[in-house]
Amino acid sequence: MQKSHLFTPGPTMVPGDVALAGAKDMIHHRTDQFKAIYVKCAGQLKQLFETSQPVLVLLGSGTAAMEAAVDAVVAPGEKMISFNGGKFGERWGKIGRNLGCDVHEVKYEWSDFAGVDKLEQALKDCPDAVAVFCQLNETASGVGNPVKDLAEVCHKAGKLIVVDGISGLSAMKCPMDEWGLDIVLTGSQKGLMLPPGLAFIAMSEKAQQKMAGHGARLFYNDLRAQLKADGKSTHAWTSGVSLYQQLSVALDMMLEEGIDNIIHRCHVQGDAVRAAAKAHGFELLNAASPGDVLTPILMPESVKASEVAKYCRGHWGIYFAAGQDDYKDKIVRIGHLGYQDHFETIMAIAAFEMAMKHFGLDIELGKGVKAAQEILMADLEEQERKSAAAG
Amino acid sequence: MQKSHLFTPGPTMVPGDVALAGAKDMIHHRTDQFKAIYVKCAGQLKQLFETSQPVLVLLGSGTAAMEAAVDAVVAPGEKMISFNGGKFGERWGKIGRNLGCDVHEVKYEWSDFAGVDKLEQALKDCPDAVAVFCQLNETASGVGNPVKDLAEVCHKAGKLIVVDGISGLSAMKCPMDEWGLDIVLTGSQKGLMLPPGLAFIAMSEKAQQKMAGHGARLFYNDLRAQLKADGKSTHAWTSGVSLYQQLSVALDMMLEEGIDNIIHRCHVQGDAVRAAAKAHGFELLNAASPGDVLTPILMPESVKASEVAKYCRGHWGIYFAAGQDDYKDKIVRIGHLGYQDHFETIMAIAAFEMAMKHFGLDIELGKGVKAAQEILMADLEEQERKSAAAG
Repeated sequence: MQKSHLFTPGPTMVPGDVALAGAKDMIHHRTDQFKAIYVKCAGQLKQLFETSQPVLVLLGSGTAAMEAAVDAVVAPGEKMISFNGGKFGERWGKIGRNLGCDVHEVKYEWSDFAGVDKLEQALKDCPDAVAVFCQLNETASGVGNPVKDLAEVCHKAGKLIVVDGISGLSAMKCPMDEWGLDIVLTGSQKGLMLPPGLAFIAMSEKAQQKMAGHGARLFYNDLRAQLKADGKSTHAWTSGVSLYQQLSVALDMMLEEGIDNIIHRCHVQGDAVRAAAKAHGFELLNAASPGDVLTPILMPESVKASEVAKYCRGHWGIYFAAGQDDYKDKIVRIGHLGYQDHFETIMAIAAFEMAMKHFGLDIELGKGVKAAQEILMADLEEQERKSAAAG
Repeated sequence: MQKSHLFTPGPTMVPGDVALAGAKDMIHHRTDQFKAIYVKCAGQLKQLFETSQPVLVLLGSGTAAMEAAVDAVVAPGEKMISFNGGKFGERWGKIGRNLGCDVHEVKYEWSDFAGVDKLEQALKDCPDAVAVFCQLNETASGVGNPVKDLAEVCHKAGKLIVVDGISGLSAMKCPMDEWGLDIVLTGSQKGLMLPPGLAFIAMSEKAQQKMAGHGARLFYNDLRAQLKADGKSTHAWTSGVSLYQQLSVALDMMLEEGIDNIIHRCHVQGDAVRAAAKAHGFELLNAASPGDVLTPILMPESVKASEVAKYCRGHWGIYFAAGQDDYKDKIVRIGHLGYQDHFETIMAIAAFEMAMKHFGLDIELGKGVKAAQEILMADLEEQERKSAAAG
């Protein structure tokens, strides 16, 4: 008997009610019945993105939305600045070059972050860039970026700012309108607690105006077509009906919990995993600027992270992610986002301790668990006090 | 956001594949289609009960099978011996008296067990009893009884032995034919990983012969009718079709894991919970004869078990059972049966520690977790060695 406990930074665990909603009777996407779901979700997605702009829903993974974003705001031959501090930051550059954009890439160590100093330098080096592309949370490194500060610099320089919130949105604060972000996008299989298959993208008025100034290179994921269809509360092409039924349930659950509460939950679980790792003397790759999506724990030379992930998955049903590219064997990534409660986070830590012991490290079992229990319990007690005070 | 983690001794957690099987297309119960499922499950149930006799499937909870058992082997006015060391042992007496049997009840403390000495005394006091009724595991106390030894005494005395394996079967060893048990019964919502609604009961040839000697008081759960229908691979009345579809999947899963492996898993998890409780200095109600279904942890005066269970359920989504009757506030029962893996058992222990701290005890968090991790990890490593050796 082996269960699956997903502590990967996407796909995350899917609530039973969300899973079941995918088995609802099929309905046609050009009907009032579907339109009612569309309209309801559209309103809820605005709340999630904290924007008054439409949130377009694409069939595809987050990468589809990244490509659509570049297509929308950078015309062929135009310059764009992209931050590359990990596999997903790197993707901005690949997409930009593929779409014929002139990419100015700011590349830095995975342990580093997209700071204001780097952006200011990039703007000096590439003053003609029309837009700046970054990650809210770089999934490959667990590094969280100071998006609010980057946005301020972009505003002063008159540049659009595009934020990949694929793993970050709904795990970390990212109020689109308040921070003046021009594009924010995310995927379905992370904080939204859905299976993979949908991507979400919202554009500021400025971004929409920029988009109107040039033609699309993409056909299917042309945001011009999607935006026009959204005006009629429908999609340009066939809708992902079953995923949409699931989206509707997931959004109900998320808004009932409250966006701020979800972000708080991920932060506290992040604190717990960080404290557990530190209790055992592990270093964290994202120590300079930890995001709250996942914690990347650096392995000593003797332990290969990819073997750890493979072992825990294969023998125990515990899903951690190893690193990617150069970090494949150097970090074990433990997720703390989506449909994951405090007690599951403790389970993840207990399993991690046992894995480290299995791989030959001198680990005192329970030590990290204790550190985590203290943080998580304090939070549970605090929640209870608040809830009692609210009556 | 609050999940439900069930550590109650039934209902236990239901695997997703089992849950989904309950949503299969409805089929009629008097068809070859249903008969094929019936026949498949009939063979698998014999493996589960370790018997060559038919295992009858009733629509009802375990209590329905208990009543059917008494109806089957004790005629009105006949004498029966029943062990009462808990709420479910007590039930044998209630059922017997309701069916007009002359009940000789062996009542003892919940911390005690149904020992051979008690049975020998009862047989002296009530030599005319036709059958002896006991529990494999008393769910109210977590006490496991030495059923094999009791059966030997019954064989020598020429008495039938009837075993309530509602919580015990498939968590503890109970090979029906090998031990010469005359009736063994269980329910669906415990080790079988199903929702409540089905009960299972098997009779030895001796028990079947005894049943043939008197008429039934029950109509619906008359085992004579059920046994006759089973000869035609059908039920006497309408079958519980959706639960049966789920049963079919659950049995596949159980036999794939292997009955002995399941029993071993419950035992190791029991050891882990016992070790965790002892690490914190708690006493166990079932210390004299611990069953492997659940662990009943005695609370100090200052802590009310029913409040603990209510709190953990309401605030944390962690389901423990408090005690019943006089033990309502005295024990917290932590289950370790059914669809529960080692890592969930660690979660249960971590939550229990946090609950004890919440209720004011001076608890060192992580201490019980550590004790459990050591036991569970040793077992995981042992499993891996075996599996590697088996190629």
